[in-house]
Amino acid sequence: MLDFIFKPSSIAVIGASEDERKIGHVVFRNLVEQGFKGKVYPVNPKRREILGIKCYPSVKDIPDRVDLAIIVIPARGVPSVVKDCAEHGVKGLVVITAGFREIGEEGVKLEKEIVKLVRSANIKMVGPNCLGVINTLNRMNATFAFDLPPSGRVAFFSQSGALGVALIDWAIENDFGFGKFVSLGNKADLNETDFLEYFGEDPETDIILGYIEDIKDGKRFLEVAKRVSKVKPVIIIKAGATEAGARAASSHTGALAGFDRAFSEAFKKAGIIRVNTIQELFETAEIFKVKKLPRGNNLLVITNAGGPGIIAADTADKFGIRLNPMSQESIEAIIDKLPSNASLYNPVDVIGDATSERYKIVLEQAIKDSVVDGICVILTPQAITDVENVAKEIVNINKISEKPVFACFIGGKKVKEAVKFLKSHQVPCYSDPSTAISSYRKLIDFSISKKKKEPEFPKIEIPAENKEKVKLILEVLENAGVTSVGDENATEILTLYGFEFPKKALAKTPEEAVKIAERIGYPVVLKVSSPNILHKTDVGGVKLNLKNAEEVYNGFIDITINVKRFMPNAYIKGVMVYEMITGGKEVILGVSYDTTFGHMVAFGLGGIYVEVLKDVAFRIIPVSKEEAYEMIEEIKGSKILEGVRGEPPYDKNNIVDKILRLSQLVIDFPVIKEIDINPYVVKHQGGIALDARMIIGRI
Amino acid sequence: MLDFIFKPSSIAVIGASEDERKIGHVVFRNLVEQGFKGKVYPVNPKRREILGIKCYPSVKDIPDRVDLAIIVIPARGVPSVVKDCAEHGVKGLVVITAGFREIGEEGVKLEKEIVKLVRSANIKMVGPNCLGVINTLNRMNATFAFDLPPSGRVAFFSQSGALGVALIDWAIENDFGFGKFVSLGNKADLNETDFLEYFGEDPETDIILGYIEDIKDGKRFLEVAKRVSKVKPVIIIKAGATEAGARAASSHTGALAGFDRAFSEAFKKAGIIRVNTIQELFETAEIFKVKKLPRGNNLLVITNAGGPGIIAADTADKFGIRLNPMSQESIEAIIDKLPSNASLYNPVDVIGDATSERYKIVLEQAIKDSVVDGICVILTPQAITDVENVAKEIVNINKISEKPVFACFIGGKKVKEAVKFLKSHQVPCYSDPSTAISSYRKLIDFSISKKKKEPEFPKIEIPAENKEKVKLILEVLENAGVTSVGDENATEILTLYGFEFPKKALAKTPEEAVKIAERIGYPVVLKVSSPNILHKTDVGGVKLNLKNAEEVYNGFIDITINVKRFMPNAYIKGVMVYEMITGGKEVILGVSYDTTFGHMVAFGLGGIYVEVLKDVAFRIIPVSKEEAYEMIEEIKGSKILEGVRGEPPYDKNNIVDKILRLSQLVIDFPVIKEIDINPYVVKHQGGIALDARMIIGRI
Repeated sequence: MLDFIFKPSSIAVIGASEDERKIGHVVFRNLVEQGFKGKVYPVNPKRREILGIKCYPSVKDIPDRVDLAIIVIPARGVPSVVKDCAEHGVKGLVVITAGFREIGEEGVKLEKEIVKLVRSANIKMVGPNCLGVINTLNRMNATFAFDLPPSGRVAFFSQSGALGVALIDWAIENDFGFGKFVSLGNKADLNETDFLEYFGEDPETDIILGYIEDIKDGKRFLEVAKRVSKVKPVIIIKAGATEAGARAASSHTGALAGFDRAFSEAFKKAGIIRVNTIQELFETAEIFKVKKLPRGNNLLVITNAGGPGIIAADTADKFGIRLNPMSQESIEAIIDKLPSNASLYNPVDVIGDATSERYKIVLEQAIKDSVVDGICVILTPQAITDVENVAKEIVNINKISEKPVFACFIGGKKVKEAVKFLKSHQVPCYSDPSTAISSYRKLIDFSISKKKKEPEFPKIEIPAENKEKVKLILEVLENAGVTSVGDENATEILTLYGFEFPKKALAKTPEEAVKIAERIGYPVVLKVSSPNILHKTDVGGVKLNLKNAEEVYNGFIDITINVKRFMPNAYIKGVMVYEMITGGKEVILGVSYDTTFGHMVAFGLGGIYVEVLKDVAFRIIPVSKEEAYEMIEEIKGSKILEGVRGEPPYDKNNIVDKILRLSQLVIDFPVIKEIDINPYVVKHQGGIALDARMIIGRI
Repeated sequence: MLDFIFKPSSIAVIGASEDERKIGHVVFRNLVEQGFKGKVYPVNPKRREILGIKCYPSVKDIPDRVDLAIIVIPARGVPSVVKDCAEHGVKGLVVITAGFREIGEEGVKLEKEIVKLVRSANIKMVGPNCLGVINTLNRMNATFAFDLPPSGRVAFFSQSGALGVALIDWAIENDFGFGKFVSLGNKADLNETDFLEYFGEDPETDIILGYIEDIKDGKRFLEVAKRVSKVKPVIIIKAGATEAGARAASSHTGALAGFDRAFSEAFKKAGIIRVNTIQELFETAEIFKVKKLPRGNNLLVITNAGGPGIIAADTADKFGIRLNPMSQESIEAIIDKLPSNASLYNPVDVIGDATSERYKIVLEQAIKDSVVDGICVILTPQAITDVENVAKEIVNINKISEKPVFACFIGGKKVKEAVKFLKSHQVPCYSDPSTAISSYRKLIDFSISKKKKEPEFPKIEIPAENKEKVKLILEVLENAGVTSVGDENATEILTLYGFEFPKKALAKTPEEAVKIAERIGYPVVLKVSSPNILHKTDVGGVKLNLKNAEEVYNGFIDITINVKRFMPNAYIKGVMVYEMITGGKEVILGVSYDTTFGHMVAFGLGGIYVEVLKDVAFRIIPVSKEEAYEMIEEIKGSKILEGVRGEPPYDKNNIVDKILRLSQLVIDFPVIKEIDINPYVVKHQGGIALDARMIIGRI
């Protein structure tokens, strides 16, 4: 799709220059001198030739097809040359020039102008305000900052050009092979999702890395990422995790979701591996170079030193990786070939005086042993360790092994060459056992995520007339300019979508309240009914567990006095009399809204624990049945719903059903931006909502 | 104290050899050829000279004082040469020879023999089964494995010799300066605490690193570490964190403490910086090379690239580091000297085209600004970045700055020389902004910990006759061979130490129970009284909230039937009738026992939440008043005790008092190994224990 950007047969550099201090010079020189296989044309009306190559006044004068144009002239001139490119049939643009959206209003206007031009000409554009693109496989360095990194099968898109420069400089020093690199710049036309998609389909790319600060189109990103991550590991560092939210959340659920949560949930849903540091980005990429996936969770650690073996075992335990020993047959097969003080369990300790021969004995057995799913080889360079030979044995074994084999060579000078050898032969190699093991966990996770079946979205049947009614209610509210939807209307909407609420009726006088209570049956709950009051408890507007006529009568009076004192201007419709619900476990259900990824359904244990411990699970809609169950398992207090201390378990199926209904409701009516159902009381069988409110508004 | 080990004026190598493949040769050669300043004598009865140096048949034949002897002969021969050393007045031994405790029974015997010999001769011994010792400052390499690392002011003790080898090899490659290194081996005589103490007093050591798998004498270690960590950073990696505990815990509190918790608590109490990976060990050491401590929590980040700046800000937020901008005056002072698109807030972004001059402008202002407590300089090598000059400016500023200045240079080839330059001038330098910031957090923590006042241990007054009684009770129980102490006796002991329990009396018949209940006042609680039943609820031995004579009568009968069915052989003393306690918040208080560090007092929120969330704080005794308050703040649910939703706060002072009493009780009577008080009900004023049990036994 974007081959004309990464594999153009001809490139024009618009703004190429003879002046070595100018970016236009550096870009042109990088293309000419670093071995790019296609044609390169300098464009500059003031020059006849640059670096001995014939220069053209305009791209239109080039007597040849031009696939890609790199623009490095000042911002003001860009629209005009974009027009030239369009006329000449250029397919791709890389606008390195800065001075657009990032400088304010004037730049925004200019940027919009060029976006309009490229879109109408069906040109694809990288940038503006970017560093350029690289493809090491055809030696195309269309950037102004550095040498080509070593060639490899890792692709990288970066929203920070400077970080790209720094990391490719790092790659050169550390023999880390890159294939393709793109600096996203202002992402005015092409953005992270386009490159994710392209790299996902690119047969020359095995591993996709990304650095992003925001995402342009959350829904499309999710959709593409889901597809790509089934085929290739996508490892992304998302910065700006702690920035203040773009918009203050109005609901309780929204506040709990915070700013960064939607990104975590989106990445999880899409199968993206989220990392938090640059170091972790490369450490994670390293393990995927092995190109094999473990079939199970059991790792064999082989070491010539006790200490690092213990550290590896600690880390494995922390990350839920099993370290079962090899099968009895395997142990018997090698026991006589190893010294008596070697440990044959797991970690297998071949002892400090081990040569490569001992490693080989264990490795050859381990790849045959069906108990072993993956192998980690730890080495410290001791007196007689033949480091290079151990590396060779690992590479040999890795060639014939169906299981992933990776290494941890701890040291510096003495292991340097061996580490280089391992890395150049697709054996991931680390210098720290903890990092080796925690990175391997991501390989296991990827393997599990790849095998996951398509999620199940059970059909939530909502009668057509109910949907119609909800539509009408929401229209009425919208027309009235209402954004905060209180208990009564929220209850009505949720009831139409299959939620149960306590029996209730509105009383205008104390006498009426008593009459209703007698009909519903004691005990009852009284709550003030007012469109202006969202937090009823805070204004003394709620009375619980009223057991007889007198208590109800007095309760009514108390509530009206309280509310009038706290909110003298509130319009009081009356006092709602509710059936009192006893027993069950309080949970919260809700929906929050994220500007990038849209709606998320929330679930947590209710009461003060959700407030104090903030123990809430979120999922971006549409929520699958499997995800709904995962949400319940995910919260720390999950065990409480299984019934502790002899209680019978609470009805998880009911919670799952309600999560799916909330998902369906906001799919059908995205105008509902946030929902709080707090508390929702889940019983041993079934469940009932006690209080609900919503926020509506155009997205 | 141990100068004769690290700074001997003369060394004998017992077992020196001409055979290059032998350890005895390598050690001797390393001493002779790597520039050791003192005298070196080879000892080997079969040789006249080794490497041209006169060889002696025995250490006794050396016509000179010998400070340190390195022993590299086979294990069997070691006792005899240790005797020779004793006779010749040798002060220190380094026994490299293996074949002791680590090979089993025979080795244990041999090890005990040499320990006896060195102790009676007042010799200090390193090892056996170790790699040796290094002091780069006098170029003493008394090991068999490697070259000397670059010289520096970091000392390192390691329980894993192999890890030591690997890390020193790493240090050579990465220009990380070490001063002294010791491989602890079997720690038969000198152990981690001895070296911690020595390095603590050593004027040539600024930073102490350690790798340990266990600790020989927990109490002494704590005491020494507390003292040393007030002066120098002590950074330790403790491996074996997930090993099954040496001993199964019998009590609830003990089980909650787990295996590794005592180490974490001990390190915290002692001011030790615990790290989890080898990488983190060195990353943490790096920041301390700056040798300045921040006065406050506000860090200024200066960067020439947005992305890494955002990552730094994310990490700062995660670790609770403030990023306030400089003062208004500072901003005004530099605003005209920087380009208009530079960001002057925090991170200060000097923009991609910044040269060293721009960095200098900000740095010079920042060190004068009292708002700034520390400075992090981020650099990416962009087109015109003069990397080396930026490094020079940082070094210059660091020389005159009272605030810590550290760097994060992201890249490879282009930043290599500058990084080397920074590191050689005591400017900590990282390649990843997250690591830079998280390491700096440890510098802040050390600064806080250093300033901490001496903890307050309020005197817990226990009347002498109460102590006498507790002593008697415990003696009686011990004489009777009782280890599990049930409710009645535990209540008695705790009451004598100032705990309150509900009113109660023992009933033998249903009628008697009713009579007692009438006296105490309804409602009451019934609990079976039996020395054989620890978990009364589990056998149906508890009835709550009995409101009248009939309920008490039937309750008594139910309990006796239940208990007989579940535990037909239990001896039932009767049924205890208790005052029913209502209101308050259930917490747990307890004591657990660790084989290395002794008793720990525990506190957590009670009920199912402690069981499900395992949210419990521990402190090793003696617990100070400050620590007791910290314990309450430390638990995740702490806020609940402050009174949520309009409740008044619960009595934290009462909890603190009870924590201090538990600490005092086990100090006075260490035979009490574990205590569970579950639940303890804390009220808005005061508190009361509802159930207690203990485990006693010789330590």
